Amino acid sequence: MHAIDVIVTKRDGHELSAEQIEWVIDAYTKGEVADEQMSSLAMAILLNGMSRREVSQWTDAMLRSGDRMDWSALDRPTADKHSTGGVGDKITLPLAPLVAACGAAVPQLSGRGLGHTGGTLDKLESIPGWRASLSPEEMLGVLSSTGAVICAAGTGLAPADRKLYALRDVTGTVESIPLIASSIMSKKIAEGTGSLVLDVKVGSGAFMKTVPRARELAETMVAIGTDHGVRTIALLTAMDRPLGRKVGNALEVEESVEVLAGGGPSDVVELTVRLAREMLAAAGMSGAKDPADALADGSAMDVWRAMIRAQGGDPDAALPRAAETLDIPAPASGVLTRLDAYGVGVAAWRLGAGRARKEDPVSFGAGITLHAKPGDTVREGQPLMTLHADDTSRFDSALASLEGAYEVAGELVVEPLPLVIERIS
Amino acid sequence: MHAIDVIVTKRDGHELSAEQIEWVIDAYTKGEVADEQMSSLAMAILLNGMSRREVSQWTDAMLRSGDRMDWSALDRPTADKHSTGGVGDKITLPLAPLVAACGAAVPQLSGRGLGHTGGTLDKLESIPGWRASLSPEEMLGVLSSTGAVICAAGTGLAPADRKLYALRDVTGTVESIPLIASSIMSKKIAEGTGSLVLDVKVGSGAFMKTVPRARELAETMVAIGTDHGVRTIALLTAMDRPLGRKVGNALEVEESVEVLAGGGPSDVVELTVRLAREMLAAAGMSGAKDPADALADGSAMDVWRAMIRAQGGDPDAALPRAAETLDIPAPASGVLTRLDAYGVGVAAWRLGAGRARKEDPVSFGAGITLHAKPGDTVREGQPLMTLHADDTSRFDSALASLEGAYEVAGELVVEPLPLVIERIS
Repeated sequence: MHAIDVIVTKRDGHELSAEQIEWVIDAYTKGEVADEQMSSLAMAILLNGMSRREVSQWTDAMLRSGDRMDWSALDRPTADKHSTGGVGDKITLPLAPLVAACGAAVPQLSGRGLGHTGGTLDKLESIPGWRASLSPEEMLGVLSSTGAVICAAGTGLAPADRKLYALRDVTGTVESIPLIASSIMSKKIAEGTGSLVLDVKVGSGAFMKTVPRARELAETMVAIGTDHGVRTIALLTAMDRPLGRKVGNALEVEESVEVLAGGGPSDVVELTVRLAREMLAAAGMSGAKDPADALADGSAMDVWRAMIRAQGGDPDAALPRAAETLDIPAPASGVLTRLDAYGVGVAAWRLGAGRARKEDPVSFGAGITLHAKPGDTVREGQPLMTLHADDTSRFDSALASLEGAYEVAGELVVEPLPLVIERIS
Repeated sequence: MHAIDVIVTKRDGHELSAEQIEWVIDAYTKGEVADEQMSSLAMAILLNGMSRREVSQWTDAMLRSGDRMDWSALDRPTADKHSTGGVGDKITLPLAPLVAACGAAVPQLSGRGLGHTGGTLDKLESIPGWRASLSPEEMLGVLSSTGAVICAAGTGLAPADRKLYALRDVTGTVESIPLIASSIMSKKIAEGTGSLVLDVKVGSGAFMKTVPRARELAETMVAIGTDHGVRTIALLTAMDRPLGRKVGNALEVEESVEVLAGGGPSDVVELTVRLAREMLAAAGMSGAKDPADALADGSAMDVWRAMIRAQGGDPDAALPRAAETLDIPAPASGVLTRLDAYGVGVAAWRLGAGRARKEDPVSFGAGITLHAKPGDTVREGQPLMTLHADDTSRFDSALASLEGAYEVAGELVVEPLPLVIERIS
């Protein structure tokens, strides 16, 4: 088989055969298909699309390029969740221990942040002593003893995806729904879970800006999961404004602990409980303890503390705080009509919470606390939000990112998206 | 500027700005834009196209990546011709000395063959002693003294095109009309000619299989030439069957000499004279000697002999002949209704006349002589063609390539294309 024949097939609008897909992924992983060939194929896929059969087989070939985890030694069903990423999206932190407290095993392999969205591992690393990298044996140990584990994915899972993702990142071929869906699903299926709940974010702070694009991505991922025998459902959820009231690494751990303690902002609580119920249902555990009860009775908090401890972290240690703060006052009295997720995300990134390149460090204490959310009434001069940074030189570019990102007016002009927009199964 | 922004602009169907085009070609030539970025851009160009402004500026940027030749020291106008390549297309060989004999200067920078089409330099190298590589001074010397020179293009002309062409060759991005047109035209304009006649071949043996595609390419190239102040016209000519009666390196030199001697097959003579008249007109020399007269009176042959000698060749030396021949008899009596250019081209390549990779050698003597052309009446058993090869082991795969490539029937079913299909100016 030749790379050019595969490229030309897709370029000319035809479907790739199963043999072509298997060959090209395998040869690319081995270095026999060159980067410049895979990138022209990726562009042809982006512009000409893929059928459901193609995207399932593409995922399958990436999946088979590496290891596949096996949790069959556990005595309870596994449940997994994936979010496409957003601003203030700390849901994995309270969710994993919550679902474990209700009886499922939750092996949650997570990543780091890049650009305006944070990463689950960066957030947890703000807890003194906590370790993201575990061996497969350690992972199974934490999962068996506490019911949940959140850690870094090993490099053995879907190596073809790792190589292809790095290539897409520099060749303008990230924004292809079949390629995004197969990238996410190859890793998730390799993680060996029996069920999967997808949280597909929609809005300015998300990768998918519109409901139709998000729906297409969700439907593609649900189809791939189903084709691979993983019970998969997706929720489309709002990311036009930030989730919760805290954005930043340690700040989001703080808010997660508030939720586990039975408090926390209503949107974070509502989405955490809704996703937990979906995960239990997908894992075939409809009769399990209700997640709202596991938050109220402290059992989710117990799992959280055990899980953090099992990975070397001290759940009672003080979290890092940024040295400098700056309040942003409401420019007028009225209703906060808009608080743009993307603007807030970029501002938090500029404050030091995020990174521009994979090798950059993050500031654990940096971020933003939000004192009002869209729809709230505010008085002129009242702090709308507080910026946190390690030094004051960060404030100017954060303020620039926030220009036009919020508005106080007489009444709501554009209705915010409902928190849960749609369910796709 | 960032490569990804340029890629995304074209990917999303927008026009590239002049600044983007200039930057990306320059950065690619310097190695600052990576191959995998240029290949995804090339695929986006292939699938989304380019406007006339974009393709002219793209050509211009490639042109300015290297040297531009200057013939202003000559005392007569320059005329150049480019063929998009076909089977048995030896026209450059008689044409360059013919146009020179009528008074124009003909600096003809040529290439080598790849795949089923032959290269002008490979053909001339079958003449003992003839040298393809000349310094700029030698080139000017031959051109001044004989009126014509056919030689290899130096590496200083449009280096961006050389790099991009090699990339397109392995990434399935050859078949883009804007990229083909800008590749050809950047080299031709860099050669410094004041006028240019394009011979755009159409049919199975050509790169453009259909008249509409060939017309689009021709119109694009004429527009680029015009935008760069080069008087440019194009002819669309037939390549559904081979041109002339000889295919192969030394065989095509033989046929060219027949034409220069006042004989030769009528199609080669007709196209040579037509192109010569177009070149003289484009060079502003409508009152010049008529090319038919320069063939009849031997003056074109005189230029040929002088030109070959000036490059170290012996015009009287015996040409290489292949040791082995095989006649293919007509399978029935009737009319030769089809003689497919592509099938004949591949057969000649398999016999040793062509190469699969740039570094392969060619056999000078290998090739095919055609004893009948479409429309000719043949008798069963009469030789339709003769295969020539250095050893008999070549015949089997050549015969396989010819399977279905010719047909003898009661009457012509499909009318062959007219030799000159269309003129575009």
